[in-house]
Amino acid sequence: MRFKKQSDYALRVLMYLATVQGDSTTIKEIAQSFGISQNHLMKVVQSLRQSGFVKTQRGNKGGIRLGQPAEQIKIGQVLRKVGEQNELAECFIQVGQCKIDRICQLKPALAKANDAFFEVLDGYSLADILGSPRAMSDLLRLGTRV
Amino acid sequence: MRFKKQSDYALRVLMYLATVQGDSTTIKEIAQSFGISQNHLMKVVQSLRQSGFVKTQRGNKGGIRLGQPAEQIKIGQVLRKVGEQNELAECFIQVGQCKIDRICQLKPALAKANDAFFEVLDGYSLADILGSPRAMSDLLRLGTRV
Repeated sequence: MRFKKQSDYALRVLMYLATVQGDSTTIKEIAQSFGISQNHLMKVVQSLRQSGFVKTQRGNKGGIRLGQPAEQIKIGQVLRKVGEQNELAECFIQVGQCKIDRICQLKPALAKANDAFFEVLDGYSLADILGSPRAMSDLLRLGTRV
Repeated sequence: MRFKKQSDYALRVLMYLATVQGDSTTIKEIAQSFGISQNHLMKVVQSLRQSGFVKTQRGNKGGIRLGQPAEQIKIGQVLRKVGEQNELAECFIQVGQCKIDRICQLKPALAKANDAFFEVLDGYSLADILGSPRAMSDLLRLGTRV
C-alpha cells in the first residue's frame, strides 16, 4: 500500500520547518531543498495551514512556520488531516461499485487494520521522527540557518 | 493510502472460490462475475498459485480452486504474498532518493504501523470476510452452483 504524494510532502514540509526551529521559510526554499515541485507543495501547505499545523504570513517578513511545537504534532493526525483516508480498496471510494459490497466483510476488517495503523503513528510526534535537528540541517544544507 | 489493484483482485478471486465451495472455476467466470479484466486476473491467479492459496489444473476438467480451506487462509498473509509490501512513502521504494533518508525516523515508525495493520488482518480468515456463502452466491449470480 502506498500514501498519496501529498502525505509524503506534508511530512517533509513539517520536518523542514521543525529543523529551522521557529525561523520563517518559504515554499520555494523547501521545494528546492527536497528537489520537489513548488506547485505540489502549495496545495500541501494550504492543507497544513487549514489544520493548524503551520502558520503562514504574507509580505516581506512573511513565510511559513510551525503552528504548534514539534512535540505536539502527531504523525497519525497529520496524515489523516492532509487527506490520507482509508481508500484501501475500491469499495471505500466508490460504494456499491463492487458487486459483493453489501455483504462483504472485508471492509470492516480493513477499517480496523487502518485504525491500528494510525494508532501507532499517533504515538510519534514530529520531534520523534526528526531525530537530530542539527544532522537534519546538514543534510538539507541549511548552512548557518540553525 | 491505497492497495494495489492486484491485492483487491486477489481477495475477490479467493472470495469467489470460497463461495463455489470446492467446485473448480475459470478465470473467465470470475472476471465476468466481477466485471473486471481477465488479463489482470491471470497475473493475480499466478501469484496466488505460487503462494499455495489456489490450485490450478489444465484441461477439460481443469480450472481453479482453493488450495487451502477458507478458514485457514489469513487475509494479512494473502496481501503480503501478492505483493502488498510496505511502499508507503518514496523512501521504501527508492532508498536514498530522499535527501534526509539517512537520519529520518519516519521510516521505522511507518514500518511499525504497517506491521500493526497486517497483524489485525492476520486475525481474519477468508471464511470470516466471506460472510454467508449463500448470500455471496446470490450476489455473484452463481445460480445453482452452490
